[in-house]
Amino acid sequence: MNLSRSFAFALTVLLTQQIQAQTMPAPETVRLDELKLMEGFPPPADKQVTAQNFLMQFPNLRWAFHHMRELLPSRNIRRGASAPSVLSVGEDLRARIDALNFVGPEGNDLTFGQYLEATYADATLIMKDGKVIYEAYHEGMPAENPHMLWSVTKSFAGLIATQLLEEGILKADALITDYVPELKGSGWSGATIQQLLNMTADIDYSEVYADQESDVVKYAMSAGMLPTPEDFAGERDLYSYLPTIPADGQHGERFIYRTVHTEVLGWVLRRATGKHLADLISERIWSKLGAEQDAYLLLDSKGTEWAGAGLNATLRDLGRFAEMLRLNGRFNGQQIIDSSVIASIREGADREAFKASGRDYQPGYSYRNKWWISHNADGAYEALGVHGQMIHVNPAVGLVVVRLSSHPVATSAVTFPITRPALAALADMLR
Amino acid sequence: MNLSRSFAFALTVLLTQQIQAQTMPAPETVRLDELKLMEGFPPPADKQVTAQNFLMQFPNLRWAFHHMRELLPSRNIRRGASAPSVLSVGEDLRARIDALNFVGPEGNDLTFGQYLEATYADATLIMKDGKVIYEAYHEGMPAENPHMLWSVTKSFAGLIATQLLEEGILKADALITDYVPELKGSGWSGATIQQLLNMTADIDYSEVYADQESDVVKYAMSAGMLPTPEDFAGERDLYSYLPTIPADGQHGERFIYRTVHTEVLGWVLRRATGKHLADLISERIWSKLGAEQDAYLLLDSKGTEWAGAGLNATLRDLGRFAEMLRLNGRFNGQQIIDSSVIASIREGADREAFKASGRDYQPGYSYRNKWWISHNADGAYEALGVHGQMIHVNPAVGLVVVRLSSHPVATSAVTFPITRPALAALADMLR
Repeated sequence: MNLSRSFAFALTVLLTQQIQAQTMPAPETVRLDELKLMEGFPPPADKQVTAQNFLMQFPNLRWAFHHMRELLPSRNIRRGASAPSVLSVGEDLRARIDALNFVGPEGNDLTFGQYLEATYADATLIMKDGKVIYEAYHEGMPAENPHMLWSVTKSFAGLIATQLLEEGILKADALITDYVPELKGSGWSGATIQQLLNMTADIDYSEVYADQESDVVKYAMSAGMLPTPEDFAGERDLYSYLPTIPADGQHGERFIYRTVHTEVLGWVLRRATGKHLADLISERIWSKLGAEQDAYLLLDSKGTEWAGAGLNATLRDLGRFAEMLRLNGRFNGQQIIDSSVIASIREGADREAFKASGRDYQPGYSYRNKWWISHNADGAYEALGVHGQMIHVNPAVGLVVVRLSSHPVATSAVTFPITRPALAALADMLR
Repeated sequence: MNLSRSFAFALTVLLTQQIQAQTMPAPETVRLDELKLMEGFPPPADKQVTAQNFLMQFPNLRWAFHHMRELLPSRNIRRGASAPSVLSVGEDLRARIDALNFVGPEGNDLTFGQYLEATYADATLIMKDGKVIYEAYHEGMPAENPHMLWSVTKSFAGLIATQLLEEGILKADALITDYVPELKGSGWSGATIQQLLNMTADIDYSEVYADQESDVVKYAMSAGMLPTPEDFAGERDLYSYLPTIPADGQHGERFIYRTVHTEVLGWVLRRATGKHLADLISERIWSKLGAEQDAYLLLDSKGTEWAGAGLNATLRDLGRFAEMLRLNGRFNGQQIIDSSVIASIREGADREAFKASGRDYQPGYSYRNKWWISHNADGAYEALGVHGQMIHVNPAVGLVVVRLSSHPVATSAVTFPITRPALAALADMLR
């Protein structure tokens, strides 16, 4: 089993390198404002983005990631009836930050502006001590469009789960199957809620985005992210698919990143509260932040939320969310999340267990309750999503960064090595 | 051709009667709050509503009509950033109105409350002289959920088209094919924009909701309203389907109600303005009304709006819209639609041409620019949608009524005969 895992990660690296070398178009050749996707009534056939082609037929995701609910069913995360909260505006440091120099992963000189372009950024928000110092919608992305967040969704689910742990509604050492008996015959049998939160429950499931044979493809087909081939014999919804995933090694020993853990967490949260995840996020976070726009979660064919991947929100509303985290749960005149919940997440998890993941590009990190904890001197932590989505909180510097991207390659292995030194340089500039 | 039309309408009546007699469950047996549709994670199989079963498998539409975007792709109609406008509250007349007596279509004594139940009302708003006197969410429909409006959508498209005529952006006597050359070989060849607006363009197309062989089924399948059978050979999107509809009689002679006319109008509006209908409604109406919630339009598989059927909005926001109409286009401190546009619609169209439609349950009516004009002494006019959707404006009495329903039978032939005397009694009570 260890062997197969090592092989899977070697394969990731190999495939990623191949993709980079062979098919990754340079950012300046696939600018959103020049692609003219979905323009015209109807658009030309080669500019038509659909639920079938948005993800696998690059560059379609450059348009799709800020139009997801035009392709797929969705559930609103209501902002509520109150007025939007004020996002304070500070000195506009965009020009200075874009010109900021740092040394890239290959020892090359780069600027922060080049970094954003190299990660196919659609929109970027930077706040320092609660004030917006950088707000950019690159290449014409509309500011009011919610953007696909992929695995940043997990961090929302994890934050709510941690709050429910604090309130005693959820028990860390309870079995997953206490909440979802349907999983008794599955790989999650015997695993605890905490193991689910830290992705140390062990299941026989591979998540290699660039491998068509990987289990993540079955997951994506069950959720409706990917079209199914004509002879598809797999499950066509999440509640049917999840119980089919078998056991692997010992629970609690290794962190291996698998989206289906968070789909199971979504199931647990719904069973524990009787509510959809969209309603939990709305009631507990979105309506209290004073968000400007409703957010939304994408759904499978049976109306089940993609709890591990389906969140869409606007840049500015994510800025409010990140500020709330930086302020230990307090924002818009109220304590939204308990400060003890933020503290618990920031503690992180077992860094030795993390090493098993093969994520050498995140040295020193751990993964706790669906958050990436850097354990660096600034106490920085992150929510990350494929294709370049990121919420970064640096409490020591009073810095939050939200970046929304439509990178052609899914895995963070491609974006993170350049993101790390870029964020370090930004923190040093602002500290 | 006339024969086939007469036959089609005779068939409608026959099928409607059959449906009423055989399969229409009594309202009290299908109460929304007792059906428990889509409750549970997952819901039991017989309570599962999907994009495939929501419309044809009653009572699923009782839940679906206020959750449409959870089933299908949708495009937001933004409310904008300003605060919601105030909906003034008057004396609560709900109890008095529910007890209001009138004589039903079969000479039977009824109350207004019984009328609402008999039309499977989900939510009802009544305003008198600008004040809410009746606001009800029946059987647990959530107030904040946008509700499916079906052909009320047409009246929004028609209102915008009339405003564009006023502004000279659209020309009433221009040919449809001047805007959409793709329709040159179709039934719309030679027809004008005004004929399209009044549904007097003549095409070989039948719209009989209860007939599985009717052309409206092909339309519904192309739009994604109905699932397609495995051997389906028809078009799977609106822009492919519309040009296939052939010519029939002489344009301009008869009003025959056909949804595809409004799908073509949607196409014309997009070509004339370069904008989606959702954006036109947002910019010209929704953002100016001070709506509480974003509305939305449902989309086909290629992202094309159902311009004839796909609008969803909340009860209170539709109240704002209806008030704006009653006030000749002025609401929320601004002139939203030109008063001349409202006046033009209220003029109505040729009442002789209307008689060809076989809609004996709307005596004296005409249909102008996608609005139903009663030509009664009060100058009342309406937007109507299948399954019981209605916006009714009575300028003489200062009355507006919005009713959202989930009636098991599509055609207004079932709801309108009871709606007419009910609204007349309400107007008499309030005048």
